[in-house]
Amino acid sequence: MTVSTAALYELLAAVKFDSNGLVPVIAQQHDTGEVLMMAYMNRDAIEETLRLGRVCYWSRSRQAMWRKGETSGQVQNLVDLRLDCDGDTLLALVDQEGVACHTGRRNCFFLAIRGNQLTTISEPLVSEKDLYGK
Amino acid sequence: MTVSTAALYELLAAVKFDSNGLVPVIAQQHDTGEVLMMAYMNRDAIEETLRLGRVCYWSRSRQAMWRKGETSGQVQNLVDLRLDCDGDTLLALVDQEGVACHTGRRNCFFLAIRGNQLTTISEPLVSEKDLYGK
Repeated sequence: MTVSTAALYELLAAVKFDSNGLVPVIAQQHDTGEVLMMAYMNRDAIEETLRLGRVCYWSRSRQAMWRKGETSGQVQNLVDLRLDCDGDTLLALVDQEGVACHTGRRNCFFLAIRGNQLTTISEPLVSEKDLYGK
Repeated sequence: MTVSTAALYELLAAVKFDSNGLVPVIAQQHDTGEVLMMAYMNRDAIEETLRLGRVCYWSRSRQAMWRKGETSGQVQNLVDLRLDCDGDTLLALVDQEGVACHTGRRNCFFLAIRGNQLTTISEPLVSEKDLYGK
């Protein structure tokens, strides 16, 4: 999806950014409902995401635009971007190419309690070496 | 679900809390995949959630424990609690009784761009008066 400038500014005005100018974004695979990851966007990342129809985050660790999949090829094509009732969280419905997690897993939420311990409940589909060439 | 003390402490040790001692939590309906809401937990809220099998958040606005549904009856029964790859986001798979959003909608993500404007894409299933008696 891509949007008009008017709609973009209306959305940006409705978002309550935190003290760092960021808003958390949940990425969900649009057809299966799988929650893939959570990351953050600033105003510029929201604008780029909506203009290009491809998800761009703000990397807090690198303090730079994070065009998801730019290095790995695992891009997220935007299907819909939704804002919540109090304006402080976004839900991005996406079509994920390949895997969302830097570990090579389809999604990032693979640690859970099983029996008496924290357990890895899914395995990588692709190696980090294949994703990042290192 | 409820868990052992050993597993609880292992999970708590793996969570990277932010500078306010909080971690964001995505609540997802376990069977339909619907993303219901996002809120925050502190250590005590995680412990209570896992011990009782019912979701408890930390309310940033009220600065108090927020036992979801305590006033409205719209509780979230915990099915699974998962931690992401870098330890800074939780995904709670829940069985939501009634509606998750304080507006009476099933989920909080009801604002989206349609045509040239930000649009409400779902309507309340129950009134706020019926939820909160005011």
